[in-house]
Amino acid sequence: MCVVLLSGGLDSATCLALVTRWGWTVHALSFDYGQRHRVELAAARVLARLYRAASHRVIPIPAFGALGGSALTDRAIRVPKFALGKSRIPVTYVPARNTLFLAFALAFAETRRATEIVIGANALDYSGYPDCRPDFLAAFGRVARLGTKAGREGRGFRIRAPLLAMTKADIVRLALALGLDPSLTTSCYDPGKNGRACGKCDACLIRAKGLAEAGANDDSKQLK
Amino acid sequence: MCVVLLSGGLDSATCLALVTRWGWTVHALSFDYGQRHRVELAAARVLARLYRAASHRVIPIPAFGALGGSALTDRAIRVPKFALGKSRIPVTYVPARNTLFLAFALAFAETRRATEIVIGANALDYSGYPDCRPDFLAAFGRVARLGTKAGREGRGFRIRAPLLAMTKADIVRLALALGLDPSLTTSCYDPGKNGRACGKCDACLIRAKGLAEAGANDDSKQLK
Repeated sequence: MCVVLLSGGLDSATCLALVTRWGWTVHALSFDYGQRHRVELAAARVLARLYRAASHRVIPIPAFGALGGSALTDRAIRVPKFALGKSRIPVTYVPARNTLFLAFALAFAETRRATEIVIGANALDYSGYPDCRPDFLAAFGRVARLGTKAGREGRGFRIRAPLLAMTKADIVRLALALGLDPSLTTSCYDPGKNGRACGKCDACLIRAKGLAEAGANDDSKQLK
Repeated sequence: MCVVLLSGGLDSATCLALVTRWGWTVHALSFDYGQRHRVELAAARVLARLYRAASHRVIPIPAFGALGGSALTDRAIRVPKFALGKSRIPVTYVPARNTLFLAFALAFAETRRATEIVIGANALDYSGYPDCRPDFLAAFGRVARLGTKAGREGRGFRIRAPLLAMTKADIVRLALALGLDPSLTTSCYDPGKNGRACGKCDACLIRAKGLAEAGANDDSKQLK
């Protein structure tokens, strides 16, 4: 049994498809944290149903978005366009986001007696976020073991990031091999009012490059 | 500048008094997570005002309490009375609570450019919670450094637990030396409808023992 952090993006959707293929029972968690690209939650709901997750919760964290400090939650900060790789850690970084998401996943996993926590982090073709890197995930694994009753009693938890060492093209190939239609997912950080992807932010650029390299369709079909 | 996790209990209040004495600017954080002893938030508000915190936020985490799995958040689980030390980790343990609180504190600290995160954890006269122990706090410190932009850029964070190696009597003595009136704080896990401490739960028993050992007044004055 596992808890899957399901944003509605390509990576987490591929994780969901993968562990479902493995036969794991999935509890999916999504977060409504004031993100600019809240449309991703619609994609997450569709995916959770499609893959028959045992449960899917959308956890509201109103206070988180209100902190600001990121282009993804603060409307006063513009999402950079055509700026991929121009800063080591871009302004779309959300302070401590994955630490917070993993903390919720850990609480949820412990109450449900799930031992695996699945996150779609990948550290090759990615935006440079510190909380997607292997050393961070290993450190959180230690927190999970030491900071919980289950961990101290030896049941433990594993933080699983099956895509960690994959390029975006690898991920697209895996998604396609699993029969996941990428157009059910959405990656854009700055969708228009109609929910359409902008095609210019880091997330759109990385996605488009991965799809192209994998010989998949172009990205005109991100969730509308 | 620091972020203080302020529950409204004796330990976090003593931390607040201590770092205020040190001259630190304090941003206080409390959490409304469906806890049975929600009356502690009233104490937290009084303390934050008394010590002139630069800010005090009460962060709602409705989804957390709804997870259940703890006598503190699940009304179907009774808070044990006169049971101190009878189980290694008691049913009042809340799954991954301090991991989640520290994650919020980390996000808040990063946006406010605070480098110190202060938590009233202590590992001597305590309830046996795994997420109050030194190895857990050290592991979270590593997560804080690796999982944030500030940490990766070398600004870093320190998880400060100044009471970690103190007995409850030590903490009472420190509180009194700092001029903190313990009756402004509340420790009870299972207060009555009028907010009065039960006097029988682990938290009440540990508190009463500490007050007695320190030669302080008895505990009849926990926040009403």
